[in-house]
Amino acid sequence: MSDATPTIGKLAIIGGGLIGSSVALAARHSGAASEIVIADTGADNLAKARALGLADSYHSTATEAVGGADLVILAVPVGAMTTVATDIAPGLKAGAIVSDVGSVKNSVLKSVGPLVPAGVHFIPGHPVAGTEQSGPEAGFASLFDGRWCILTPPEDADPAALGTLSAFWTKLGSKVDIMTADHHDLVLAITSHVPHLIAYNIVGTANDLETVTRSEVIKYSAGGFRDFTRIAASDPTMWRDVFLNNKDAVLEMLGRFSEDLTALQRAIRWGDGDALFDLFTHTRDIRKRIIDAGQDDDTPDFGRPHDS
Amino acid sequence: MSDATPTIGKLAIIGGGLIGSSVALAARHSGAASEIVIADTGADNLAKARALGLADSYHSTATEAVGGADLVILAVPVGAMTTVATDIAPGLKAGAIVSDVGSVKNSVLKSVGPLVPAGVHFIPGHPVAGTEQSGPEAGFASLFDGRWCILTPPEDADPAALGTLSAFWTKLGSKVDIMTADHHDLVLAITSHVPHLIAYNIVGTANDLETVTRSEVIKYSAGGFRDFTRIAASDPTMWRDVFLNNKDAVLEMLGRFSEDLTALQRAIRWGDGDALFDLFTHTRDIRKRIIDAGQDDDTPDFGRPHDS
Repeated sequence: MSDATPTIGKLAIIGGGLIGSSVALAARHSGAASEIVIADTGADNLAKARALGLADSYHSTATEAVGGADLVILAVPVGAMTTVATDIAPGLKAGAIVSDVGSVKNSVLKSVGPLVPAGVHFIPGHPVAGTEQSGPEAGFASLFDGRWCILTPPEDADPAALGTLSAFWTKLGSKVDIMTADHHDLVLAITSHVPHLIAYNIVGTANDLETVTRSEVIKYSAGGFRDFTRIAASDPTMWRDVFLNNKDAVLEMLGRFSEDLTALQRAIRWGDGDALFDLFTHTRDIRKRIIDAGQDDDTPDFGRPHDS
Repeated sequence: MSDATPTIGKLAIIGGGLIGSSVALAARHSGAASEIVIADTGADNLAKARALGLADSYHSTATEAVGGADLVILAVPVGAMTTVATDIAPGLKAGAIVSDVGSVKNSVLKSVGPLVPAGVHFIPGHPVAGTEQSGPEAGFASLFDGRWCILTPPEDADPAALGTLSAFWTKLGSKVDIMTADHHDLVLAITSHVPHLIAYNIVGTANDLETVTRSEVIKYSAGGFRDFTRIAASDPTMWRDVFLNNKDAVLEMLGRFSEDLTALQRAIRWGDGDALFDLFTHTRDIRKRIIDAGQDDDTPDFGRPHDS
């Protein structure tokens, strides 16, 4: 298939938030689909999507949007997947591919899978990309460039459908990996879910102190705290659903985090400088490897503006 | 005093790392001192400082550098302050001001204070600014622009000396606040020290898993983890010394953080979505206030490069 040929005929995106709108823009930009439709049950979101010209048509119900679609991407919070899947099931055409962009895969596989009619291919997916912003205006076409998209096909997935979905994400700029839903959930628990949880947590702790005022927290946030506030500004509904739906893996990784933190706390209490120095030296290396792998930029301070 | 008049005659900076070199560049750029000298016991650092033209003269011992200095800024790790103070004490001229840039203030006040000779003014300071990089090449003149510099004068501090030091930091672009060393250490424990500790900790946890490979951690780090690796790449010696020297405040704030995290863990285990949603909604507001206060930029994803 040449780059000029769309990989998909009609693409239906259910949910016009940050990810859904970025999929629309990236699909248009790359020519990955010949027709793009968006459904959003929020009238406000739908009006914004329309004003931004994200798609060829706009629908207030998912059911209406999926008719004749070759690829349906569910871009709603994980907790809303079952409702949406129930709504679209009767309207899906035979041979269509249904996928999603949820940050948790096992619960989607188990809850959505049984709702997808025979003859329709269901392959969950997760583009590991995003910003702390939400809504249709937050989307941009290059969001997936160089980022990984993880697909977690059921064991009996159709190889041709898997190939089509992989090619779609590759066209959008992603690198594609395939793994089980269980493994995905464990990997993301440590690379995304627990980091978000501890960011939310420290911002909450700082918010609640009697001895340090909120205005002091804000004034002196450049000491490190402000970094955490970025991801703690992420969409509350999406993240509530992540934690409710990836409970086991999150609790497992959180247990390890807390165990390690207790050891650090003990090292501080007993003045064990060598233990602290050793850890702080090891952690430096990982950042270098992330930059070498193209997963972050090497400009200091995330490239925050510095005049000279 | 007009802006064209240097506030300081001879400025001696002890330690040519990120902060010391930035003080040199900012002082030169702003005309805050008429003569700038740098001392660094590391031959390599000193050679780099010289190659960069950071100062008017370069010294391999602090003792040599402080002769005739009107303002001496100790820019070494907190654990090295006592040694440096002992070295410079005999060479300080009457009426000189000695200050520092350490991230902990009570231990500096207590350890350095008694070593400063009578007739010399000692006023500890802490510019709340930095990047994850280290060394003379990491410095830049605008590092302190719009950031806060906290001064923690002893109770009997000379008001004129305090005024001179405040004016110096203001010339460098800082906003200046004055508080007790104890309060500083508590404020920074939550806005800087504990954030660094949990960043170091999660990077350590991720590094040690058997079920998720290091290469997976790196590949999928854009899900949030990579944000933490930036501050976990900070200078190990500096941060070891911070934790060893601000033990009480760090343990206090860490205790609160862990308590709150345990409550979140419980909410996840019991599926209490409302508790999660409530916290995640509150934390969003703090980022907005930090941006409104000019302490961070409002571009999404820290302004990481996005093509469109």
